[in-house]
Amino acid sequence: MVILNEDRPVRLLARGKSISQAVNVAEILRNNFIKGANYSEVLIDSEELTNRDGSKSNVSSMEIEILPPKK
Amino acid sequence: MVILNEDRPVRLLARGKSISQAVNVAEILRNNFIKGANYSEVLIDSEELTNRDGSKSNVSSMEIEILPPKK
Repeated sequence: MVILNEDRPVRLLARGKSISQAVNVAEILRNNFIKGANYSEVLIDSEELTNRDGSKSNVSSMEIEILPPKK
Repeated sequence: MVILNEDRPVRLLARGKSISQAVNVAEILRNNFIKGANYSEVLIDSEELTNRDGSKSNVSSMEIEILPPKK
């Protein structure tokens, strides 16, 4: 919120199950706190993570960029 | 998959906690099944749902559009 108020864009990053949480955060920010803020880029990708037992798994990741409102 | 193989775009819709699942589906589709398919639009929005007890709550929703691979 501080960053958006200073007129700079913000990027939210999330992986796996927290993706829906990041989307919630973005929506609450946009609807309740910084009115007029808009999405610029929503990127979806996969990352390969190594588990504790050494096996590997693919996890989806998401990047949401929010732009400050236009003045 | 059938639709993408027929060269038409596909839209995935999800709400609330299933958003991360939709992202997983999109990634698996893109990486394992229809190689070369790409995202065109990823839209994030909120919807107001009425609960069973009549109260209302806001739920985030997401729309992912996947384009068939270019030939």
